[in-house]
Amino acid sequence: MSTEKIPYKIYLTEDEMPRAWYNVRADMKVKPAPLLNPGTGKPMGFEDLTPVFCDELVRQELDNDTAFFEIPEHIRDFYKMYRPSPLVRAYCLEEKLQTPAKIYYKFEGNNTSGSHKLNSAIAQAYYAKEQGLTGVTTETGAGQWGTALSMACAYLGLDLKVFMVKCSYEQKPFRREVMRTYGASVTPSPSDTTAVGRRILEQFPGTAGSLGCAISEAVEVATSTPGYRYVLGSVLNQVLLHQSVIGLETKAALEKYGVVPDMIIGCAGGGSNLGGLIAPFMGEKLRGERDYQIIAVEPKSCPSFTRGTFAYDFCDTGMVCPLAKMYTLGSSFMPNPDHAGGLRFHGMSSTLSQLYHDGYMEARAVSQTDVFEAAEYFARVEGILPAPESSHAIRVAIDEAIKCKETGEEKTIVFGLTGTGYFDLVAYEKFHNGEMKNYIPSDEEIAASVAKLPKVE
Amino acid sequence: MSTEKIPYKIYLTEDEMPRAWYNVRADMKVKPAPLLNPGTGKPMGFEDLTPVFCDELVRQELDNDTAFFEIPEHIRDFYKMYRPSPLVRAYCLEEKLQTPAKIYYKFEGNNTSGSHKLNSAIAQAYYAKEQGLTGVTTETGAGQWGTALSMACAYLGLDLKVFMVKCSYEQKPFRREVMRTYGASVTPSPSDTTAVGRRILEQFPGTAGSLGCAISEAVEVATSTPGYRYVLGSVLNQVLLHQSVIGLETKAALEKYGVVPDMIIGCAGGGSNLGGLIAPFMGEKLRGERDYQIIAVEPKSCPSFTRGTFAYDFCDTGMVCPLAKMYTLGSSFMPNPDHAGGLRFHGMSSTLSQLYHDGYMEARAVSQTDVFEAAEYFARVEGILPAPESSHAIRVAIDEAIKCKETGEEKTIVFGLTGTGYFDLVAYEKFHNGEMKNYIPSDEEIAASVAKLPKVE
Repeated sequence: MSTEKIPYKIYLTEDEMPRAWYNVRADMKVKPAPLLNPGTGKPMGFEDLTPVFCDELVRQELDNDTAFFEIPEHIRDFYKMYRPSPLVRAYCLEEKLQTPAKIYYKFEGNNTSGSHKLNSAIAQAYYAKEQGLTGVTTETGAGQWGTALSMACAYLGLDLKVFMVKCSYEQKPFRREVMRTYGASVTPSPSDTTAVGRRILEQFPGTAGSLGCAISEAVEVATSTPGYRYVLGSVLNQVLLHQSVIGLETKAALEKYGVVPDMIIGCAGGGSNLGGLIAPFMGEKLRGERDYQIIAVEPKSCPSFTRGTFAYDFCDTGMVCPLAKMYTLGSSFMPNPDHAGGLRFHGMSSTLSQLYHDGYMEARAVSQTDVFEAAEYFARVEGILPAPESSHAIRVAIDEAIKCKETGEEKTIVFGLTGTGYFDLVAYEKFHNGEMKNYIPSDEEIAASVAKLPKVE
Repeated sequence: MSTEKIPYKIYLTEDEMPRAWYNVRADMKVKPAPLLNPGTGKPMGFEDLTPVFCDELVRQELDNDTAFFEIPEHIRDFYKMYRPSPLVRAYCLEEKLQTPAKIYYKFEGNNTSGSHKLNSAIAQAYYAKEQGLTGVTTETGAGQWGTALSMACAYLGLDLKVFMVKCSYEQKPFRREVMRTYGASVTPSPSDTTAVGRRILEQFPGTAGSLGCAISEAVEVATSTPGYRYVLGSVLNQVLLHQSVIGLETKAALEKYGVVPDMIIGCAGGGSNLGGLIAPFMGEKLRGERDYQIIAVEPKSCPSFTRGTFAYDFCDTGMVCPLAKMYTLGSSFMPNPDHAGGLRFHGMSSTLSQLYHDGYMEARAVSQTDVFEAAEYFARVEGILPAPESSHAIRVAIDEAIKCKETGEEKTIVFGLTGTGYFDLVAYEKFHNGEMKNYIPSDEEIAASVAKLPKVE
């Protein structure tokens, strides 16, 4: 433990960066339920998954026992281009709030993709390249994941076909251009380049597309093009594994200064950032070594943890993906399009769902305008324009710091600042103009989509 | 000198960050010529300048003798929110180019303004606040400077009125929204809120505005509003002084690993980034302690160094500002609007102009498509999407590294990566679509605007 003053930003040296990812499933007494084949209802094994995903990634997906996976040197070199990411002591925020709490945030936005997504993108692209594949396909909505993957594929010389939800393709031309700069081919979805796309276009002429539809197109191209596989940026166990680099760095940086957090806060859409941030802390908690308060923050407009059901469901609205057991609002649940802050997934990572179900973490839902209020406050005080997604965590961190002011408790709060909001300024503009709405689904709406959950056993 | 492997990114510790700015003028044998009053032709003194600029900034502007100015603690604390910026060893670029050259770049883009502009914005806002002022005014074109200043003013609780060139205001709504997020008032220029704006609107109905016009409006409001002053993001001596933090950090980071550069490359518009980057190296050169090859890179479309005249000229197209002696294309020179890469200023910092005139640095002009080609290449290899301005320096750094490959020389090249291109994707799109043009002014065009230079003695 060092006695020197904690700097504004704690950077690990390159030697101190993690050399292995941590698999939290290894320490879970109750493992996450397996993926099921929607046709047969049977658990999916290696052979069932490798036509879609790279072999090594399927191994990682299915392995509930190995605690550490070595990070290949090539990936560690790539990480060094934008990592270690800083763990920031929010001195300015603490002072502004006049709170006795000590606030830290792990900032993952200092790279061109603007978010933590790059941590898994490079890993998935690497294993595809190692397997001798020529390319990968994926879908993207707002474009963070597509950007991250295009950067990784450019670095490794791998082809990339991105299916981008059509309305985003048209409304976010800048994201599309970043991907093109990195050499990716970007197709608005639904498109006439796939059978499923043509079918959807026939059924719904003029549709603006959806993530579920883009997934279906990407999977079709991956499975029908020799030398291709499909990759996904969240939800899956493998993604959480790669994202554990966030939590491992955070823990190492805190330990350098002898700091032990009381509370860890992260936003949750599919769970990739939250799962990565909390992984090593959750490991200690699971092993009974230390207790932490762990809080998932989700939007009130898409509240899978706080109002969903723990059950098997499709991961995609198109119902082509395997069934996963998770907290879900039902795959037919459509988050209100007014919701600008991402985190719009109807379900949640199986691993995090199991941990939540078993009482190892809690969840809070926050409303959109409260989130943007926190985002703007944070930007002015800490200088970073946060992504709307990340701002869900900021909201709860600020709320908790204010509570500490009231109670006088000197809690140490760590939250994940997953990315920057440079491409989300249309949402900020709505907020500034007072045009932003808060949408909260009714009980009936949620009950209706939950009623459509697939029957398993 | 350390013998350990040089990391991908060299970060100074907060203790190693500069505590004083370095004023290169103190070491110049021939000082930069003074600003002249355009009416009287007489040098402008303290009293002439304080109605427009803050007192302390005028002192810094006029002081050609003091070598070091202590950085106030409050500014150093703000710097710690986004500095030290990394000095990156471009291992991936070196490998891709197969060059024996060792390439480093100082990356100033890891902050929400996306550029180095914040280094001077916080200093100027700080001295305004110290003087008890309530607000400042400025102009902005593309918006980097306006964003930086809005961040600084938000931090210090200072009002800010930004006049944004009308066509940028309309075409770059995202930049405008970032400034609004930080609480700035942003007015499209020309506007009907100033006398000069109304006059221009009457003369040129429907005009898209210009930087010169926005300056005139900002100065009018600053000088006519009690408790206000005007601030400027480049060209001035004071700005180069603040930006010396870039060069001081770069030099300290290199010295940590015993590295001495052969060549230092920076892009040059008004000169703020280049002047800051080279300052301490130029100081050694001026004192005869060490020699460096120093290269300014400018666009062929606006070639003040390489094709301009060293003479007194107006700093603004509106001819309301003082006269400065500099390399200039004439204040009536209009850079082609097709040029997307910034660096569109007709003149150049007086300090850099004098140094260039006296043979202490050289200059190269590069064409726009060559710049974007380098930008895209760099993005794919080093992972950072560079600003078009910064990419001028990348172009020459790559050219020099390729020369080293041919000659086998192991030169150490340092260049300034001033910022990110997240808000420049319209230009990238033009490049991808093959719609980008290279504009090179004719000799007649330059001669015509140089012929209109003001007569001084």
